[in-house]
Amino acid sequence: MKHLVLTAVAAASLIHPASAEEPASIPSPGEIVAAAPASDWVAIAPSDLLVMDLVADAGGEARRVVIQLMPAPFSQGWIGNIRKLAAAHWWDGTSINRVQDNYVAQWGDATEKKALPAGLAVVPESGYAISDPASGRVTVGGKPAIRLSKDEANRRSKRFEQTGKGDIFGGRSMADAYAPEVMFESGWPIAYSGSQVPDSRWPVHCYGAVGVGRNMSPDTGSGAELYAVIGHAPRHLDRNIALVGRVISGIEHLSSLPRGTGALGFYEDAAERVAITAIRVATELPAADQPRFEYLSTDSDSFDRYADARQNRRDPFFIKPAGGADICNIPVPVRPIQAK
Amino acid sequence: MKHLVLTAVAAASLIHPASAEEPASIPSPGEIVAAAPASDWVAIAPSDLLVMDLVADAGGEARRVVIQLMPAPFSQGWIGNIRKLAAAHWWDGTSINRVQDNYVAQWGDATEKKALPAGLAVVPESGYAISDPASGRVTVGGKPAIRLSKDEANRRSKRFEQTGKGDIFGGRSMADAYAPEVMFESGWPIAYSGSQVPDSRWPVHCYGAVGVGRNMSPDTGSGAELYAVIGHAPRHLDRNIALVGRVISGIEHLSSLPRGTGALGFYEDAAERVAITAIRVATELPAADQPRFEYLSTDSDSFDRYADARQNRRDPFFIKPAGGADICNIPVPVRPIQAK
Repeated sequence: MKHLVLTAVAAASLIHPASAEEPASIPSPGEIVAAAPASDWVAIAPSDLLVMDLVADAGGEARRVVIQLMPAPFSQGWIGNIRKLAAAHWWDGTSINRVQDNYVAQWGDATEKKALPAGLAVVPESGYAISDPASGRVTVGGKPAIRLSKDEANRRSKRFEQTGKGDIFGGRSMADAYAPEVMFESGWPIAYSGSQVPDSRWPVHCYGAVGVGRNMSPDTGSGAELYAVIGHAPRHLDRNIALVGRVISGIEHLSSLPRGTGALGFYEDAAERVAITAIRVATELPAADQPRFEYLSTDSDSFDRYADARQNRRDPFFIKPAGGADICNIPVPVRPIQAK
Repeated sequence: MKHLVLTAVAAASLIHPASAEEPASIPSPGEIVAAAPASDWVAIAPSDLLVMDLVADAGGEARRVVIQLMPAPFSQGWIGNIRKLAAAHWWDGTSINRVQDNYVAQWGDATEKKALPAGLAVVPESGYAISDPASGRVTVGGKPAIRLSKDEANRRSKRFEQTGKGDIFGGRSMADAYAPEVMFESGWPIAYSGSQVPDSRWPVHCYGAVGVGRNMSPDTGSGAELYAVIGHAPRHLDRNIALVGRVISGIEHLSSLPRGTGALGFYEDAAERVAITAIRVATELPAADQPRFEYLSTDSDSFDRYADARQNRRDPFFIKPAGGADICNIPVPVRPIQAK
């Protein structure tokens, strides 16, 4: 009576990409990631980690959320503000004030009266996208920045000839409803205006993305009010709100909170808010308490094979590979660095 | 100090589509839905509602989840089984056994030993998609089944001529990485193999979708083990698992449950499981206890305008309309029927 997706093999097909419990056969995304050589992993600098500690839960368990800040050239104006806010310990004693199902968890000063530290930048809306072609973009000729091994390119080229499907550089492999093209750059999912129009690119709202709450345009927010995506990617917010990072650990401490019953999921009763003990850039924490993470380089062959496997599930549970994937369904693998 | 997405107007841009708290100007998706005439709404038959009652929460609050079953011709073999399981009260006393972040909440018999009722069908894998062109498909010539009013078509045609963007029947308006085309049929998001290949179409895994757990192929599951999507749409499961419905009310009772810490998000400790009091087709409930819902007809002009507004946000908060939307980001509006 095993009418469950429960057995070792079947279950494995439903695991998160960075897990590696699947038996060998056609490699699953998780197996590809687990087999990636150490040289394909990139350590995240502690100076790019924002550590949010919430009050312990009802059972007394600690709740820590770790956010990776976006690298240059994206959103650096807001990220500079966030570094200042963290250094000023500005968020200590603030709270998570809003949890809207299939949308966002949002935190900051519920009173809206707490003075901000001096010296925060006012960032213009032009900061939502990057238009400088000299700023280190790794894509070429408007193609997604996924390199293929020769063998993989040959295999895929044959498949494309035979079926007209599955070419990662054409067809629907990463077809996107929100941007002419999408790609991976320096470990992040990025949308791109394409080679036909003036070069522009911008970060996208996937699950776990962290963005900056704002008032009406032309306000762009300071960075003091932040939200994390806890539902289906709200891509319509791309280029409308600044994205500054992503949750890489502990998102369950946000996504499993009770939903607020007020408008937009705000908690109606102040007692429902979840207090934030502290938010720090990891470098300010004692060395032993600094989280350490690494991500799979999106320029590596391992990532190419992982992305391909996410687009064409061939591991045993699957019977119909899709021949494509939403860029938000190719999450960049991130894992803790194991102590040596 | 309003560095929040909090003011009446700004906040309104982040609301769910079926809400209507936005002030007039360029109509938002929520305003369009609120203004739809009664004739654009379709009542859901109580015989197509599956009502799942969980034990009360820690605060003594009732927890009810309402699932709309898919209409013919989709997945009817499994849905027949589900009707039999509900009539046999088979799920009473079973539990939610698995909650995996950004993926699924899953329920059924944790012991895997409970005998199934007699007479359940064994449904073949061919049931994952529909191949009969005579079965009532509402799309024409491979175009998404969204009809436009003449005014809207003219407006859009002009925009397309001027900008090359935003044509709902071309470009990237509903570009999809998983299927050649996507459309709405009888109130549901449906993928379509396109007019170039043998006609086939199938339901898609969006947030809230309810599917049938299964063992390894060629098993397709009986329907006794079900899951609901509580994260980013796992579209790679399309055509690999049967979809039988969607949660239309109470999904927060699943999505905000503590995540399981075992493999795949299964609860490791039996005490963590959430008991299911009863699952019934609504017609078996006392009349006063039957939930009543209606959905916005996807053949209506209101839906066309709503879908267009979801693809091109022009309400005041937005500065860059995307010119397209993921089909899972155009949720079909569903609301309770107000007592007269």
